[in-house]
Amino acid sequence: MTFDDLLRNRRSIRNFQQKDVPLETIKEIIKDSCLAPSASNGQPCNFIIIKNRDMMEKISAECKKNLLNDFADSPGPMKERYEAILQDEKFNIFYNAPSVVYVVGSPDVDSLDVDCALAVGYLMFSAAQRGLGTCWIGFGTNIRDPKIKEEIGLPDNYSIVAPLIIGYPQLIPAPLERHDPRILQIIS
Amino acid sequence: MTFDDLLRNRRSIRNFQQKDVPLETIKEIIKDSCLAPSASNGQPCNFIIIKNRDMMEKISAECKKNLLNDFADSPGPMKERYEAILQDEKFNIFYNAPSVVYVVGSPDVDSLDVDCALAVGYLMFSAAQRGLGTCWIGFGTNIRDPKIKEEIGLPDNYSIVAPLIIGYPQLIPAPLERHDPRILQIIS
Repeated sequence: MTFDDLLRNRRSIRNFQQKDVPLETIKEIIKDSCLAPSASNGQPCNFIIIKNRDMMEKISAECKKNLLNDFADSPGPMKERYEAILQDEKFNIFYNAPSVVYVVGSPDVDSLDVDCALAVGYLMFSAAQRGLGTCWIGFGTNIRDPKIKEEIGLPDNYSIVAPLIIGYPQLIPAPLERHDPRILQIIS
Repeated sequence: MTFDDLLRNRRSIRNFQQKDVPLETIKEIIKDSCLAPSASNGQPCNFIIIKNRDMMEKISAECKKNLLNDFADSPGPMKERYEAILQDEKFNIFYNAPSVVYVVGSPDVDSLDVDCALAVGYLMFSAAQRGLGTCWIGFGTNIRDPKIKEEIGLPDNYSIVAPLIIGYPQLIPAPLERHDPRILQIIS
């Protein structure tokens, strides 16, 4: 597949076939993501692979609970936009995907967020190249229960940068609208 | 070019031909980068294109001065690693590239850093696809002089996420070593 095809056809996928993604495929995609550049070649990304629906359900419930508590403490646009869906018991933040990869690392690394985000971009393309769909699930960062952190092997002092769901797309949505690039200034 | 070629052959480039990159090409690459996903489709990236060597020299001097002052105030591993090179008057932080694109935005957007980093990943691939080399220049974020900010059109309340140099490679380095992916846990 050419990069141009990937660039124009990659979508965020929230609707998956109930088909398993082989562990080896996920490992290959993660390996590709490690080709992303990082500040001073620090390579600070760590990965947790979850292919267990019970665990994904548990994490979804934990994140929903924490988000709804946050909304109660400090209402705002996030509450208005997402409270109703998070209150829906049937809503799973991972959209019933068969797997999720957590990209995590030490917040002592100043560039952790951007280094991991670059790796996630690679993950998305590498997955799309294999006919897989992904979506960065921001809600999924809200794991606070130390027991769950321990169960998934997340070191207590680590930050979650990105939970990325991976599966075979059932439905590929139309592209979301993009505004024209906002170029503030050109100095020639 | 296939994505796999790009994935394996993209390098961070610090050695450029003295050949201009047409403004239209830079605009096309920026437009491609806007296809990157962003949290809630917020599209918070803004761009500043600088193709003027005097201005790039001025920004380089500004960033070097600020970094050296920072090192004097709080010594640490960054000082040890980079002080000597930054003290070299001949060193230009942009490696004499013919152009730099600044990716900037409002820090009021929580996801600004990761959204812009995803867009930068697209920028890098879109440039590589056109035979262009790029490098994320972390040093280039250290612009503090309000006059320079004004000259380049950077709103006072905006953060610089990424300065990305763009040019035709003179020398393509060997790949940097990567450690094996650090997979902390697999839950099947």
